[in-house]
Amino acid sequence: MYRSHTCGELRISDVGASVTLSGWVQATRNFGGLTFVDLRDRYGITQLVFNQDEQPELADQANRLGREFVINAEGVVRERSNKNPNRPTGDIEIDVLRFSILNAAKTPPFTIEDETDGGDDLRMKYRYMDIRRNPVKENLIFRSNLSLQTRLYLSQQGFVEIETPNLIKSTPEGARDFVVPSRMNPGQFYALPQSPQTFKQILMVGGMDKYFQIVKCFRDEDLRADRQPEFTQIDCEMSFVTQEDILNTFEGLTRHLFKHTLDLELGDFPRMSYDEAIKRYGSDKPDLRFDMEFVELNEVAQGKGFGVFDNSELVVGITVKGQADAYSNKDIKKLTEWMQRPQIGAKGLVYIKYLNDGVKSSVGKFFDDDELNSWKEKLEAETGDIVFILSGEEEKTRKQLNELRLEMGRKHDLIKEGDFKPLWVVDFPLLEWDEESNRFHAMHHPFTSPKKEDHQRMLDGDHETMKSLRADAYDLVINGSEIGGGSIRIHDRALQSKNFDLLGFSKEEAEAQFGFLMGAFEYGAPPHGGIAFGFDRLCAVMNGQASIRDFIAFPKNNQGKDVMIDAPSLIDGEQLDELNLALNLQEKED
Amino acid sequence: MYRSHTCGELRISDVGASVTLSGWVQATRNFGGLTFVDLRDRYGITQLVFNQDEQPELADQANRLGREFVINAEGVVRERSNKNPNRPTGDIEIDVLRFSILNAAKTPPFTIEDETDGGDDLRMKYRYMDIRRNPVKENLIFRSNLSLQTRLYLSQQGFVEIETPNLIKSTPEGARDFVVPSRMNPGQFYALPQSPQTFKQILMVGGMDKYFQIVKCFRDEDLRADRQPEFTQIDCEMSFVTQEDILNTFEGLTRHLFKHTLDLELGDFPRMSYDEAIKRYGSDKPDLRFDMEFVELNEVAQGKGFGVFDNSELVVGITVKGQADAYSNKDIKKLTEWMQRPQIGAKGLVYIKYLNDGVKSSVGKFFDDDELNSWKEKLEAETGDIVFILSGEEEKTRKQLNELRLEMGRKHDLIKEGDFKPLWVVDFPLLEWDEESNRFHAMHHPFTSPKKEDHQRMLDGDHETMKSLRADAYDLVINGSEIGGGSIRIHDRALQSKNFDLLGFSKEEAEAQFGFLMGAFEYGAPPHGGIAFGFDRLCAVMNGQASIRDFIAFPKNNQGKDVMIDAPSLIDGEQLDELNLALNLQEKED
Repeated sequence: MYRSHTCGELRISDVGASVTLSGWVQATRNFGGLTFVDLRDRYGITQLVFNQDEQPELADQANRLGREFVINAEGVVRERSNKNPNRPTGDIEIDVLRFSILNAAKTPPFTIEDETDGGDDLRMKYRYMDIRRNPVKENLIFRSNLSLQTRLYLSQQGFVEIETPNLIKSTPEGARDFVVPSRMNPGQFYALPQSPQTFKQILMVGGMDKYFQIVKCFRDEDLRADRQPEFTQIDCEMSFVTQEDILNTFEGLTRHLFKHTLDLELGDFPRMSYDEAIKRYGSDKPDLRFDMEFVELNEVAQGKGFGVFDNSELVVGITVKGQADAYSNKDIKKLTEWMQRPQIGAKGLVYIKYLNDGVKSSVGKFFDDDELNSWKEKLEAETGDIVFILSGEEEKTRKQLNELRLEMGRKHDLIKEGDFKPLWVVDFPLLEWDEESNRFHAMHHPFTSPKKEDHQRMLDGDHETMKSLRADAYDLVINGSEIGGGSIRIHDRALQSKNFDLLGFSKEEAEAQFGFLMGAFEYGAPPHGGIAFGFDRLCAVMNGQASIRDFIAFPKNNQGKDVMIDAPSLIDGEQLDELNLALNLQEKED
Repeated sequence: MYRSHTCGELRISDVGASVTLSGWVQATRNFGGLTFVDLRDRYGITQLVFNQDEQPELADQANRLGREFVINAEGVVRERSNKNPNRPTGDIEIDVLRFSILNAAKTPPFTIEDETDGGDDLRMKYRYMDIRRNPVKENLIFRSNLSLQTRLYLSQQGFVEIETPNLIKSTPEGARDFVVPSRMNPGQFYALPQSPQTFKQILMVGGMDKYFQIVKCFRDEDLRADRQPEFTQIDCEMSFVTQEDILNTFEGLTRHLFKHTLDLELGDFPRMSYDEAIKRYGSDKPDLRFDMEFVELNEVAQGKGFGVFDNSELVVGITVKGQADAYSNKDIKKLTEWMQRPQIGAKGLVYIKYLNDGVKSSVGKFFDDDELNSWKEKLEAETGDIVFILSGEEEKTRKQLNELRLEMGRKHDLIKEGDFKPLWVVDFPLLEWDEESNRFHAMHHPFTSPKKEDHQRMLDGDHETMKSLRADAYDLVINGSEIGGGSIRIHDRALQSKNFDLLGFSKEEAEAQFGFLMGAFEYGAPPHGGIAFGFDRLCAVMNGQASIRDFIAFPKNNQGKDVMIDAPSLIDGEQLDELNLALNLQEKED
């Protein structure tokens, strides 16, 4: 028997018991006649004691134990004289009578502590040691709990978890597919799913009524800091529902998850139209943990002789409460430079400080104090506040001010730790016109339904009409992160066909790629809709962490590599032959 | 609102209620003045009634409804005069006041009934209609319940569900990998996992202690009738355990699953060594729902002048109780031919009938009645029984007799419906010597540990010693199907290295493919072991079905094709270029 108890289990009530523990050596301390060994496993740390006088041989062996050795020890639980109140097992220790080394360990390349000295690359290469660290271990356990709670809730609501296939068909729409050559069908390829979208719709046509799946999805995109080529989503679809049904169901799920993993009762789930979110926050995923809404200033700021404002489509500002004194000229210069970085691309940054001794502003030459004071009401600004103003083309300017707003929130600690502010963003546009490709793009995806009142306008309308169509599409945003999104789907062949047409599919392309779905719509497709939550992201947001990486046991790096197993890698020529493939590396050099 | 109730929900107590239902038209019946529509959804069927006299327009519309139309109907629940006791909603019907067609349907290509007229190909092409049929729908719901119960049980036992990556590294050991070209790493490939084996071991080295995952796995094998290129397993691993711990834990899981999905209490989980299973049943997955054990007859049958027996390594028989009269000479000839088919390959079949009026046997010339009667005790045969005997090379003969035993079980209805007989087969050989490749093969897989008492023999022994090593490996067999298998793993670099060596890996190959795992063993690897259950197979066996296909929402056919979506398929030349690949179809013609 390797153990009678875990290393997190023994308490003062166990004193006197004979026990067997197994685990890793976290640390050894030799105090003259006594050697203490902290023995660690997933469940905690228990102190082992070896007495040099009583058992010199055992104590000598204990003194030679290295960090991360795996050992097995038998002994008797006794009360500690020096209790450790920070540790659940801190009242007791084990007087060891026998122990053996199950496996020795080389010196770890980084410390197995909550705060480690290991850099990212080292941690990933030796992920098996990194996972022993509490922060990573706890994240993985959290994720497991979250997935179980998701399944419990959705099952209780009558959802059926159905596995959809991973070897499917490549479709050029959307992101790039990972493909899988088929040996049995020479020259042909499967694709890995970017999402189970069409399958879950097919399941609705199949009468399954309520489907969910926690499912791996795959996108061969150039990886940004926090993207992974494989990621996980909570994927759902329901029949005979309206947007309202779906929003209520998944508000319920979200409440359940916060309640049963964090013991938190979430507040309201307000709803905001896409247009309103853009207008008030310059973003379709506003962070509502702090206010600082956008204030449009065209009315008061234009026509006063300041050309930059006068020639702008939009003049818009935010008020940062009580921070007028916090910004020296140098600070403002730095902030302006930050806003001018290519990632944001603002041309400049106008400020107004409302000070005790008057108004100070970078546009003081064009607007006198009275003028600027008259803006206070609109800006909801008081003495002591600083206002930042951007101007220019409307869409760009809003995006830039969104970045500044978020920066102000972070910089001035406006975000309370442990605060969660959910928001449904609704009424997205159905289509976006793309000048470059001279066609429409789907704002959500090609299966999203226009709002019911827009169906006929979509079938009959002209080009301009298409730009004004609204979709039954919705995103769940928490703390400024998009947790998930979904839509009511088209379930009618004519409408789906029109949509493919607008999106630039020829009849033949649409038929070749999605003929099975449009065919299914002709055999009794119910009205249906669904949603998908990004599961990795949800884990991170719920834990107030910016990165999803440590919620994934074995993440890939920014080159799409798993540095522990060294994947991807070359394969045998024989394997390539069997797959009827040849490498074609030269052409790349063009 | 699409519905106030489902089609399976309304009862006599709802009479008088105003309700709204949505669903599919299962059937319409027009009886003069009344039209009945059976409205179906996932939950059941409810009868709608339209009265020609009272609402002629509505009734006319109802009469025009086709099968599988999707409709929405409002009305009042009323008691039926002709109750249908076979249907939970059979006491009531809906007097319809308003209805609308949500979607029309073409005539389905096969009937949406429990017994359909659709062949396999048609059912797969229109899987969305096939799934509407109760047998398929119920299978998918069963599977969902089974996965939830698996997760509940294992979570209660402290297991953490951890997702392992799908884009991993190709290793030539085992079955053929599906590979995925990496665009970002030209010329390199990921592989899809055949199992999460090395990752789950890494998680044990990472201290996760108890891991599980219900996970898709992939094997690019030529497909037999009941194999799928992607399949699902319940995958588990535990640290600081012996074989005994794992067997008990997964006996517990299996009991829980039968109890909570089928409401069945399983009986004993006996254990049988691999050698014993082969000796008694000629199979390492014996079906214990009926007896008919093998009886070795060398002692009594050899040396009596019958050359066929005398020159055989093994003479072995089975006794079929009470069936002596059931086999005419013609029947025995047919059975002999069945045994001689290439799939089985027996040379001949000897029988002995113990009849009221004496003994009749195909070897009567060589053994007189007294002689044959003297075998009765050994054979546990009585008057009325027939005995079948095979002889030849030991291993082949046992396999052939296993086939005959199973055929007898089926043919003579020895298998009680709803009976489940689990069995742990243990003490598998570690290695099999393969003459053709002139090397050992792993009986389970290369990470399986020899039994503790064999460790040193493995490190020091000669070639012959290796053949006698026993593994800490075990299979769970239910009703003659292998549900799962596992082993205690090697956690020591030297032993793992020796195993790779025996399996024909060069030091370099072992390092390139599994260096990360052997490296991990040097940084504190705990003793560990695990098991995996075939989830698709488990679903089928629990439901007494031979095929796994209808427990998979979207299975592939024997050519690895999904005929509904038409995958795999050709991809763009542009996609190939991006992946640095070219097709190489000519070489195949060699």
